Amino acid sequence: MIKDNEFIKSKNVPGPTKEEIRALIIAKSEASKKDVVMDIGCGTGGISCEIAKIAKKVIAIDKNPEAIEITGKNLKKFNLQDKVELIEDEAVAGLKSIHTINLAIIGGSNNQMNEIIDLIDEKLVYNGKIIVTAILIETKVQALNKLKNLGYNTEIIEVNISKGRFIRNKTMMLAQNPIAIITAIKLD
Amino acid sequence: MIKDNEFIKSKNVPGPTKEEIRALIIAKSEASKKDVVMDIGCGTGGISCEIAKIAKKVIAIDKNPEAIEITGKNLKKFNLQDKVELIEDEAVAGLKSIHTINLAIIGGSNNQMNEIIDLIDEKLVYNGKIIVTAILIETKVQALNKLKNLGYNTEIIEVNISKGRFIRNKTMMLAQNPIAIITAIKLD
Amino acid sequence: MIKDNEFIKSKNVPGPTKEEIRALIIAKSEASKKDVVMDIGCGTGGISCEIAKIAKKVIAIDKNPEAIEITGKNLKKFNLQDKVELIEDEAVAGLKSIHTINLAIIGGSNNQMNEIIDLIDEKLVYNGKIIVTAILIETKVQALNKLKNLGYNTEIIEVNISKGRFIRNKTMMLAQNPIAIITAIKLD
Amino acid sequence: MIKDNEFIKSKNVPGPTKEEIRALIIAKSEASKKDVVMDIGCGTGGISCEIAKIAKKVIAIDKNPEAIEITGKNLKKFNLQDKVELIEDEAVAGLKSIHTINLAIIGGSNNQMNEIIDLIDEKLVYNGKIIVTAILIETKVQALNKLKNLGYNTEIIEVNISKGRFIRNKTMMLAQNPIAIITAIKLD
Ligand SMILES: Nc1ncnc2c1ncn2[C@@H]1O[C@H](CSCC[C@H](N)C(=O)O)[C@@H](O)[C@H]1O
Ligand SMILES: Nc1ncnc2c1ncn2[C@@H]1O[C@H](CSCC[C@H](N)C(=O)O)[C@@H](O)[C@H]1O
Ligand SMILES: Nc1ncnc2c1ncn2[C@@H]1O[C@H](CSCC[C@H](N)C(=O)O)[C@@H](O)[C@H]1O
Ligand SMILES: Nc1ncnc2c1ncn2[C@@H]1O[C@H](CSCC[C@H](N)C(=O)O)[C@@H](O)[C@H]1O
Repeated sequence: MIKDNEFIKSKNVPGPTKEEIRALIIAKSEASKKDVVMDIGCGTGGISCEIAKIAKKVIAIDKNPEAIEITGKNLKKFNLQDKVELIEDEAVAGLKSIHTINLAIIGGSNNQMNEIIDLIDEKLVYNGKIIVTAILIETKVQALNKLKNLGYNTEIIEVNISKGRFIRNKTMMLAQNPIAIITAIKLD
Repeated sequence: MIKDNEFIKSKNVPGPTKEEIRALIIAKSEASKKDVVMDIGCGTGGISCEIAKIAKKVIAIDKNPEAIEITGKNLKKFNLQDKVELIEDEAVAGLKSIHTINLAIIGGSNNQMNEIIDLIDEKLVYNGKIIVTAILIETKVQALNKLKNLGYNTEIIEVNISKGRFIRNKTMMLAQNPIAIITAIKLD
Repeated sequence: MIKDNEFIKSKNVPGPTKEEIRALIIAKSEASKKDVVMDIGCGTGGISCEIAKIAKKVIAIDKNPEAIEITGKNLKKFNLQDKVELIEDEAVAGLKSIHTINLAIIGGSNNQMNEIIDLIDEKLVYNGKIIVTAILIETKVQALNKLKNLGYNTEIIEVNISKGRFIRNKTMMLAQNPIAIITAIKLD
Repeated sequence: MIKDNEFIKSKNVPGPTKEEIRALIIAKSEASKKDVVMDIGCGTGGISCEIAKIAKKVIAIDKNPEAIEITGKNLKKFNLQDKVELIEDEAVAGLKSIHTINLAIIGGSNNQMNEIIDLIDEKLVYNGKIIVTAILIETKVQALNKLKNLGYNTEIIEVNISKGRFIRNKTMMLAQNPIAIITAIKLD
């Protein structure tokens, strides 16, 4: 994984998703070089960069122009820009023009989780996956219900990680905020 | 419990120990109105204030003059000053002049955990308790080993708590750093 | 707190709520000897016993006859039966006959969270508290929304505790399942 | 990652390391197809199988004959046996005959952490990595100190993961025991 502090950041754009969470998302995604992947709410580009190292193509979307800019910069920094298409738009609008995808990772939804998932579902191949990361407990429950209702094979994990900071030969553990990772497979 | 933000704070003094951790310490301590209690490394006075509401007498010690000052202010704020003796000293030095105690809570030790526990052990009644809170993993192991070696009946819990912050009708969980609470009873 | 293993248990009745969670609930409740308290879904009696040590009166309700029986046994074991009224009923039905209360603790709701909270709200004094413990993420969100909608001053914490088991001089931390504690104050 | 329940298990052999922890270890290891990797204390083969999918060669060692047997079975099940050499021996003894390695993952040490790390250090290339997973708090501190003392660039994370179990349309989070992952790079 790229280290958290290697990403170019902007104070108005959330992310990057912490290294360990990116690792878990990538592992859960089982992405391969044949996959066309959407990163919805790409923010700083944390997920887009990791997925671009693996997949055939990444489509990264964010409604915030600064997020698109900063994601672009990070893709360039890690020399991954050729694989990634950047769309500055609301997810719901942007998803309309998308064709078949194998995997979608939702990192931001802003109260439109249901609509976003419905639109992804239309484009997603069978056995394709939707992964949702949620830091809001309401989002977590909403995404889980939506995916279960669509008949997806759904899993949820909640991750609490703390990282050691060395202080004069001793180690203080600093907590990262809890985050849920929902992994859902579209069954045929 | 007193709310975290009700305490007068100083930027050079750690604490107060978070409300939930204070609640767990008080519960584990089973302190009663007959008890003489030491608060070693009283910091902002978080523990001293809570214990003073219950115990007969509290002796609060800290090597940092500012900690003693701020603990004094907090005790006054909550009208608990009459029950608490404040000692500005290194724990090891200050403990020498102490007589019998029923309970000691160690919130700071600065590499002198073993010496501090040995000195407490000399003053502690049978069935008395030593409680250690540790945010450093090395301190945790050291205190645990020391207390087990002294033959105390020892328990350790590790606490990870996150607290909701309401953001536009949604709830984000903010993690507090993990902390260990060691509870040890002196057997006769 | 009463230790977990001191409670009489029955395999068909959940509980007792773990010692540390009971401690946090009691602390959050700020129960005093003037309070009339309802324990809704009393299960094994873990909460009823702790609250009975503090409050003026406890009304414990459970729809499961075995829960009422086992709570009764535990109250007797700790000599707290005089303070506790046991009601074998659905919470929604049983709450109808209740008069003024100062505090309600909801440990089980079975899909009737909204109705239960509405009924409690009718009986609860101003500045009274409702505490909900939730192990299901949907219940957590539902209770939180309901209490916020009723205008209560609401807090949520999520607790992850692990406890050391000593194995040949070493310490393995065993995780307890995460639980949310929602504390809500009725404002006037 | 291979799902936890896809591994052949034996009741006398610990493991497999949970899916999410395997994912984090693999990510932290940054293993590539050029690497010769040791899996020390291979247990059920959870780590050996994952690493064998990536690395050039894996040397798996365990002192428990049953662990070697079960690891062998799992390697065969996932058709990875050609890449893995199995050694049934104490780590300290078995490490003597090893040549250059690029990565070592320690999943079991049984009080010989220091000796094991010293031996690995002799065989490990510069910029090679040692990863230690520890469920015992004493092991965690010991490995951390040892690696820091050897001058390795060392990181520690503590992972608490819970996983949803769906119960009648609701979701209960079940906690996995906390585990530390120490990642150390040999500097030149
Ligand atoms: N409805 C919507 N359409 C498009 N973008 C959205 C959106 N709702 C939220 N977002 C975007 O989602 C992002 C969430 S932050 C994502 C961080 C990212 N995973 C990383 O690793 O860097 C924000 O940048 C926000 O602008
Ligand atoms: N050897 C020692 N002797 C006395 N005080 C010590 C000490 N080592 C650390 N301390 C003190 O321990 C304190 C730890 S912070 C304690 C916070 C406190 N429990 C609260 O709730 O406010 C610091 O103020 C530090 O000065
Ligand atoms: N609608 C309802 N009315 C009454 N009891 C209910 C209920 N829904 C669930 N319960 C009860 O809630 C209990 C939850 S378990 C509670 C454990 C308890 N706090 C302890 O410490 O022992 C169960 O016994 C269940 O029978
Ligand atoms: N000194 C030592 N030498 C060799 N093996 C050891 C050892 N100390 C412990 N072990 C082994 O370490 C293993 C730890 S369990 C490891 C589980 C493994 N990571 C998996 O995913 O399946 C046990 O099988 C134990 O026999």
